[in-house]
Amino acid sequence: MSSTSGQVIRCKAAVAWEAGKPVVIEEVEVAPPQAKEVRVKILFTSLCHTDVYFWEAKGQTPVFPRIFGHEAGGIVESVGEGVTDLKPGDHVLPIFTGECKECAHCKSEESNMCDLLRINTERGVMLSDGKSRFSIKGKPIYHFVGTSTFSEYTVIHVGCLAKINPSAPLDKVCLLSCGISTGLGAALNVAKPKRGSTVAVFGLGAVGLAAAEGARIAGASRIIGVDLNPRRFNEAKKFGVTEFLNPKDYDKPIQEVIAGMTNGGVDRSIECTGNINAMISAFECVHDGWGVAVLVGVPSRDDQFKTHPMNILNERTLKGTFFGNYKPRSDIPSVVEKYMNKELELEKFITHEVPFAEINKAFEYMLQGDSLRCIIRMGA
Amino acid sequence: MSSTSGQVIRCKAAVAWEAGKPVVIEEVEVAPPQAKEVRVKILFTSLCHTDVYFWEAKGQTPVFPRIFGHEAGGIVESVGEGVTDLKPGDHVLPIFTGECKECAHCKSEESNMCDLLRINTERGVMLSDGKSRFSIKGKPIYHFVGTSTFSEYTVIHVGCLAKINPSAPLDKVCLLSCGISTGLGAALNVAKPKRGSTVAVFGLGAVGLAAAEGARIAGASRIIGVDLNPRRFNEAKKFGVTEFLNPKDYDKPIQEVIAGMTNGGVDRSIECTGNINAMISAFECVHDGWGVAVLVGVPSRDDQFKTHPMNILNERTLKGTFFGNYKPRSDIPSVVEKYMNKELELEKFITHEVPFAEINKAFEYMLQGDSLRCIIRMGA
Ligand SMILES: NC(=O)c1ccc[n+]([C@@H]2O[C@H](COP(=O)([O-])OP(=O)(O)OC[C@H]3O[C@@H](n4cnc5c(N)ncnc54)[C@H](O)[C@@H]3O)[C@@H](O)[C@H]2O)c1
Ligand SMILES: NC(=O)c1ccc[n+]([C@@H]2O[C@H](COP(=O)([O-])OP(=O)(O)OC[C@H]3O[C@@H](n4cnc5c(N)ncnc54)[C@H](O)[C@@H]3O)[C@@H](O)[C@H]2O)c1
Ligand SMILES: [Zn+2]
Ligand SMILES: [Zn+2]
Ligand SMILES: [Zn+2]
Ligand SMILES: [Zn+2]
Repeated sequence: MSSTSGQVIRCKAAVAWEAGKPVVIEEVEVAPPQAKEVRVKILFTSLCHTDVYFWEAKGQTPVFPRIFGHEAGGIVESVGEGVTDLKPGDHVLPIFTGECKECAHCKSEESNMCDLLRINTERGVMLSDGKSRFSIKGKPIYHFVGTSTFSEYTVIHVGCLAKINPSAPLDKVCLLSCGISTGLGAALNVAKPKRGSTVAVFGLGAVGLAAAEGARIAGASRIIGVDLNPRRFNEAKKFGVTEFLNPKDYDKPIQEVIAGMTNGGVDRSIECTGNINAMISAFECVHDGWGVAVLVGVPSRDDQFKTHPMNILNERTLKGTFFGNYKPRSDIPSVVEKYMNKELELEKFITHEVPFAEINKAFEYMLQGDSLRCIIRMGA
Repeated sequence: MSSTSGQVIRCKAAVAWEAGKPVVIEEVEVAPPQAKEVRVKILFTSLCHTDVYFWEAKGQTPVFPRIFGHEAGGIVESVGEGVTDLKPGDHVLPIFTGECKECAHCKSEESNMCDLLRINTERGVMLSDGKSRFSIKGKPIYHFVGTSTFSEYTVIHVGCLAKINPSAPLDKVCLLSCGISTGLGAALNVAKPKRGSTVAVFGLGAVGLAAAEGARIAGASRIIGVDLNPRRFNEAKKFGVTEFLNPKDYDKPIQEVIAGMTNGGVDRSIECTGNINAMISAFECVHDGWGVAVLVGVPSRDDQFKTHPMNILNERTLKGTFFGNYKPRSDIPSVVEKYMNKELELEKFITHEVPFAEINKAFEYMLQGDSLRCIIRMGA
């Protein structure tokens, strides 16, 4: 039992007071975990584009003041009533989409969209009592996707924590808490390219490059990377991308360019941009008859996916996925083992590292398209 | 060798001179089959909604004068050069989407969209020479989807003919040449509902009812039929439909009604209407996490499929199919055997029968929503 158990903890957190304004390191109070909740000491966190969308809050519902962050690794500090799976000292990855193990989704082999704990970007409070565990001088600061890892301590539902091998380095495997597992799983669990097939990946951020890595592991022979940022291409080669297309370089829709290069279309495509036009292109660029397109990017509230129904009728398949269809508690420990066994490299996704005090730099790197992942060290 | 082989045959055909105007029985000349072509004596044909769309030519490219018809059974009269798989006297079903057996689609296990012989509703001529085999006083009359079965004799590419068991009654198995195989295959080959699952079928014409029949065979426990025509419900019970919904009876979108009845959505849906709103509802009514929607209906040229991308991201799957993903030459003979073995009933799809001279009645029955299938007897 830690000495802080049952007490309010005062610690540092990066608070987003307003949409799009630099986050501010503040001293916050973190209440003890309630039933089925766990308080976690975060050691490392990183920034994923989903944080940036909801922080910018363009085309998303604004919820402020809020503590963002959902890609992280930490150690259990204390547990609330009824938590039996975790104890203080366990190493955990917080996951934005949980697993209650009891609902129809958790019991289905096909879904990881837990009825109770699925992603909810508009909820800023804990499920049990509709309240926040964070406050500053008694005023609540809202949570983000149940994780809020931009804080030295945070409170998370036990269903949103994967217990992992304690010898896994948290400054690397924290990336498996969102982006890398999402891209890898989108390829391996959802798109499932066959050996020798062609795959297009839209968006060559960490999520897209993890999808490319998954396609490479599955044996794809051509991996076509599509991005508006030409600096992505050199990096992308390390992840198995064999060809690069910048839609800005062409007068015609990129799906037509891809069809021309691949005798009618790719076998699989994976969209990792969040841009609605890229989603439509990713669908329309797959080969008729057998092509499968997988959407991963988080759209804006008012986006519309539009296509001629004949594109569907022509025997294409369209799917979407959260977190690469991995069930967080059941599957993520073994993805961590893939890293431990050197089947999966994580170092190449890490382009930057900053101390917590400089967290705003991580936002800048992502906004400027400079970073894949920037590790934020909470310690010092 | 028949006495007509190599000769022009003069026979009766139902010619559509203008969009939406009654077809006219005319004496036409049918040229001998060219290389890879087969001339077939049609004994029975029926009317499918796809004929009606292109005859009405609302929102479709008009090609006139034209001989419609693609659901039929007949006997080979003569064969062109290089045809080795068929000989005069063979019993055949013409199929609007062919199988060359050589292209990437024909070699793929997943696709039946033959590169050479896939459905092309705008082409009114034969592939080999770009000419029609039908004429009246030297003026060409156009073909429809390579079959044009509303004629006593027609010329068809060998790749668009399934050779079937000669003891199968052509006045029944002609239905397997389009609609029934399409619906059955959409369920069994594409939607693949599991035992005990819930299935929604949009459109309870022959195609939709064949889809319901497929869902019943697969073991679905609830089959929800959706149609604007309330007369369909009584008929539908014979095909395994357990519940009936008329979108006109509700103020809210039918996908919301279905979600309410099924704890969030059906496991599978199959759209067999051709109506764009029904296509969107069919997609949005499947359960998130695992739901699969299959589109079968033929859309209009200017339709747009629109949905919020979050509906896709929430782990739904959308697919389309032609001809239920059956490969016509490889698979249809065994579907005919299902009828011969009494695994599949065809009689219940036949609501009307008319002699060829009264073919316009078949159009009226379908337009008034009275018929499932009307068999048209060519003989007398
Ligand atoms: N479904 C999930 O479970 C899940 C999980 C994590 C992240 N995401 C989403 O995945 C996406 C990628 O995340 P990330 O962290 O890798 O972001 P990132 O910003 O590092 O990468 C996105 C890339 O997409 C490119 N891009 C943007 N618009 C484009 C377009 N129209 N065409 C081609 N490329 C375009 C950008 O230049 C950038 O390189 C985001 O939308 C994020 O919200 C989804
Ligand atoms: N993909 C293929 O291979 C293929 C093959 C054959 C037929 N088709 C298409 O399948 C569809 C069905 O063919 P059919 O011969 O059974 O036609 P049909 O006219 O007998 O049946 C269609 C039914 O859909 C109903 N309907 C129309 N709009 C609706 C809506 N908005 N909501 C609910 N119900 C609605 C009608 O009332 C009718 O009962 C047509 O679009 C046809 O062109 C496709
Ligand atoms: Zn993320
Ligand atoms: Zn659950
Ligand atoms: Zn048809
Ligand atoms: Zn072919």
